Amino acid sequence: MNRNTVHARVLVDELVRVGVTDLCIAPGSRSTPLILAAAARGPQGDGALRIRVFIDERSAAFFALGLGKATGRPAAVVTTSGTAVANLLPAVVESAWSETPLLLLTADRPARLREADANQVIDQRGIFGSYPVLALELPPPEVSDEALRHVRATAGRAVAASMGLPAGPVHLNLPYAKPLEPVPVPTDLPEGYPEAAEPGLSGRPDGGPWTRVGARRPRASVDEIEALARELEGAERGVIVAGPHPESERLGPVLRRFASAWGVPLLADPLSGGRHGPSAGATVIAGYDLLLRDPEAAAALRPDRIVRVGSAPTSAALVAWLGRHGDVPQTVVDAGRRWKDHQAIAHRSVPVCPVDALDRLTARGLAASGAEWLARWTRADEAVADQALAGPAHEGHLARAVVDALPPGTPLFVSSSMPVRDVDAFGGARDAALSVLGNRGASGIDGIVSTALGVAAGSGRATAALVGDLAFLHDLNGLLATRERDARLVLVVVNNDGGGIFHMLPVREREPAFTPYFATPHGADFEKAAGVYGVDYRRVAPEELGGSVSEALTSDRRGTLVLEVRTDRDDNSAAHAASVQRAIAAARSAL
Amino acid sequence: MNRNTVHARVLVDELVRVGVTDLCIAPGSRSTPLILAAAARGPQGDGALRIRVFIDERSAAFFALGLGKATGRPAAVVTTSGTAVANLLPAVVESAWSETPLLLLTADRPARLREADANQVIDQRGIFGSYPVLALELPPPEVSDEALRHVRATAGRAVAASMGLPAGPVHLNLPYAKPLEPVPVPTDLPEGYPEAAEPGLSGRPDGGPWTRVGARRPRASVDEIEALARELEGAERGVIVAGPHPESERLGPVLRRFASAWGVPLLADPLSGGRHGPSAGATVIAGYDLLLRDPEAAAALRPDRIVRVGSAPTSAALVAWLGRHGDVPQTVVDAGRRWKDHQAIAHRSVPVCPVDALDRLTARGLAASGAEWLARWTRADEAVADQALAGPAHEGHLARAVVDALPPGTPLFVSSSMPVRDVDAFGGARDAALSVLGNRGASGIDGIVSTALGVAAGSGRATAALVGDLAFLHDLNGLLATRERDARLVLVVVNNDGGGIFHMLPVREREPAFTPYFATPHGADFEKAAGVYGVDYRRVAPEELGGSVSEALTSDRRGTLVLEVRTDRDDNSAAHAASVQRAIAAARSAL
Repeated sequence: MNRNTVHARVLVDELVRVGVTDLCIAPGSRSTPLILAAAARGPQGDGALRIRVFIDERSAAFFALGLGKATGRPAAVVTTSGTAVANLLPAVVESAWSETPLLLLTADRPARLREADANQVIDQRGIFGSYPVLALELPPPEVSDEALRHVRATAGRAVAASMGLPAGPVHLNLPYAKPLEPVPVPTDLPEGYPEAAEPGLSGRPDGGPWTRVGARRPRASVDEIEALARELEGAERGVIVAGPHPESERLGPVLRRFASAWGVPLLADPLSGGRHGPSAGATVIAGYDLLLRDPEAAAALRPDRIVRVGSAPTSAALVAWLGRHGDVPQTVVDAGRRWKDHQAIAHRSVPVCPVDALDRLTARGLAASGAEWLARWTRADEAVADQALAGPAHEGHLARAVVDALPPGTPLFVSSSMPVRDVDAFGGARDAALSVLGNRGASGIDGIVSTALGVAAGSGRATAALVGDLAFLHDLNGLLATRERDARLVLVVVNNDGGGIFHMLPVREREPAFTPYFATPHGADFEKAAGVYGVDYRRVAPEELGGSVSEALTSDRRGTLVLEVRTDRDDNSAAHAASVQRAIAAARSAL
Repeated sequence: MNRNTVHARVLVDELVRVGVTDLCIAPGSRSTPLILAAAARGPQGDGALRIRVFIDERSAAFFALGLGKATGRPAAVVTTSGTAVANLLPAVVESAWSETPLLLLTADRPARLREADANQVIDQRGIFGSYPVLALELPPPEVSDEALRHVRATAGRAVAASMGLPAGPVHLNLPYAKPLEPVPVPTDLPEGYPEAAEPGLSGRPDGGPWTRVGARRPRASVDEIEALARELEGAERGVIVAGPHPESERLGPVLRRFASAWGVPLLADPLSGGRHGPSAGATVIAGYDLLLRDPEAAAALRPDRIVRVGSAPTSAALVAWLGRHGDVPQTVVDAGRRWKDHQAIAHRSVPVCPVDALDRLTARGLAASGAEWLARWTRADEAVADQALAGPAHEGHLARAVVDALPPGTPLFVSSSMPVRDVDAFGGARDAALSVLGNRGASGIDGIVSTALGVAAGSGRATAALVGDLAFLHDLNGLLATRERDARLVLVVVNNDGGGIFHMLPVREREPAFTPYFATPHGADFEKAAGVYGVDYRRVAPEELGGSVSEALTSDRRGTLVLEVRTDRDDNSAAHAASVQRAIAAARSAL
């Protein structure tokens, strides 16, 4: 027993008490006190913690991010000192920008070694810049009631901070001097130990948290709700635009009820939670991305009031349409970290929890917007839906096939770049409750495989993921976590051998630079990639995809299945463009 | 033509003029102006630049780091905005800590989108913390002589800063607003363009740099050299300890000449440059790590003067031996960024270039230290060398086999963790010039494959690398760069299915936690890993390794060959411990 042992045990014990259930660790020596303390609470100990082991810290952090997305609670990532910590930054940024709980526990060496030539010492304080919602360095371990109470209070505060509104990453930097193993160092302990270190040592006698930290959540006052209601009631052509939101599962039903009460179209991003669910058909418009690409349709559908929640929608057409209506009163209901109005068009910003506010607005009741207005949107949306997928197949068809194949309640993780856009534009809306998640905070294609596996493990449900080949390759290391048998994932990889998104951009005209430097064909062998960690793999034809996904999700298979579908970038972009044209024509005639 | 096009072309042109020859790019949209400008100077253009394409920005940056290590000049990494940039941090830290030139060109979106919900906008300014030697954001592109002169001057200044002493990473953040492609935007150009933007637009008429920036290098004055010489001349038992150094190829010969002139043992880390080379036998002690593990030998070899260069040696025994002689005058000659004395034992710090200082000390001439002192070290070293590898084979034998198999002049890249320690302890010293390189700044096991490939490409020579299985898997994405046909690499992967280094630590006694959480067996299939990108692969028996390495390096093969050697962690650690015991016994009887 020594100061490190006691310190780490108390920290881990308090994390368990405040609700941390998952630890993602990457091996290292400096983190030995933490890992041994965690092991005693893991499956070999009292089972309070699930412990998962990673080689690549970047993947570990994204897996933990996925757990956070699925559970709403932070999973802890434990690393050794040095560049191990630097590898966490991408997931930390995504956690901050998508407001997802995440807890980083980085072991460090003693402060006296900083900016000197000791091995694996970098400056870990502040390494995540302004991204963490809380970043602290714990003082060097000390065994006293006062010090251990501080450890417990800090653990509770850290977890609460990461789950606040806004939620986000919390970084605790933990310096340990040798010995790192639990060898006896009697001088580390105060005279009269263990009594001398009570009650910080044992924690609250009821087994609960040291400090019970309440939820921190900005809410509107009664008067503010009333004022908002009166402002909206005057509208004849109201619209709700719901972008990606960290609490999509809670927000979705609230959005649909609010849209019904107000009687207006709900333009719901797949990541808003509003798109799929019971009674989605009544107000949910799923075809806005195709519809609003048409300047005529976009002009014909002029709103007189817009309520916005979530961050900027995935659909560039929808964002542009909002931008063209800067003169229409737009109210943003959002208490997140980032300013949810990068176009500077909002008339009012209401920095409160939208789940709470919309729920209360619905309960209050609103005079409904004009019925013909909603009907026009619905007609146009139906026309778009009829035509969008009528022509030659492209990746939008694959997105739709996956969405349609999901048993109700299935989580779907969609990669950034084309998958989220295809699910947005072509995925439709279903009456079944589906939880669609993505890394749409910073919209990177990094860490996608790991995040999807984390979502699968955290949700406890058979989960589907739709990713492109570049995202799959970027996080190949994420496949190590397919060993986590509670992560049941059907990982659909749409392989067009490069960056299909660039074919949607004007730079596609710029050969000879385009193909090597933008499209970047790689010729990677995905069956072998899956084989590195013995992951089940099947290549399926595009038309088989839906059936394969459905079968895999409904069987009692455990672990991960990679389903590769190959497409051609050029064919895809041509068929995609034809879809858009057909959809636009249909919308025009319906309006 | 528009402001982005002009700005990017001028930037790339000036980078070429100041000596940048390699660009490592990861595809993205925001970086379009840079990539198109670079493409016009690449193999499709005038051939001034080699352009390499990566999927994973982390690997791109480590590859560029390897180029920097091999050439002493910064390679540029080009990324799009968002988490792409966050993925560079591990290589940025290593670049800073190992004082290796590296240039990061990160495309960004306009400043008005910051801390808001625009897509792929994070705060890229200052994202690398205090690690860069220079971090600047260029102002939004503007076409005027004044603005373009600033771009040119900044490019020259950036490259010079990254090659200064200390060398390190330079970060230029480059915000671009749309359009990103070279479409005409006449209002972007001043009246009378192009003349109105001269001479910033065309650059210096002689085709040279805008500003010729001299080398920045702290050097000792004549008086300081004289004072240093007088201080050393009094020694009877002088020792030179040379740790890892960024300019090892230049430092090595200087070290050996200085040691000969002073007549003292040169304890040369493989990464110091001093270990291998002509006349290494005279003063180079290669067995210090084994020798000094013995308290008796360590005490018997008490120095009265120590000169240190480079950062802390890889050998923990040597570091501990230095620490036990805090009362002996120790002089650190180093002008690097980190304080090269984390044990706080130095009597004197001389913040000048050691290559220059030792060269001038040698030229001045020094009264030699006592001959018997050097002879004692040499006897002990020979005894250790005789015995260290006499017993059952372990990974130290593999390290030795690789070192011995290298044709003179071959670069060898050694991974952090066990490979560098095995090359240090068991690799011996050769009279042949070998350039041994590693990521020993922050000593991470991340980015190893990429750095090795970068070294191979930058050196232009058939290169060997020695890496463990965890490092190989951590940077599996690095294998994409095996497509770079000028990177001729023989990549030896010593696969003991986990973290062999942990078997060398006391935590090995801590089952049941040890195996799953420290040793972390993964069972990965390395043949399939190589197959993802079609890399040649062969599994070889330990005793075949030397022959296979030698054959692969001397054949005219291009590209990369992965040689996997399997070992057993338990057997290895037992045989390793026996080697140490034999070496210690031999040293004792020789002393």
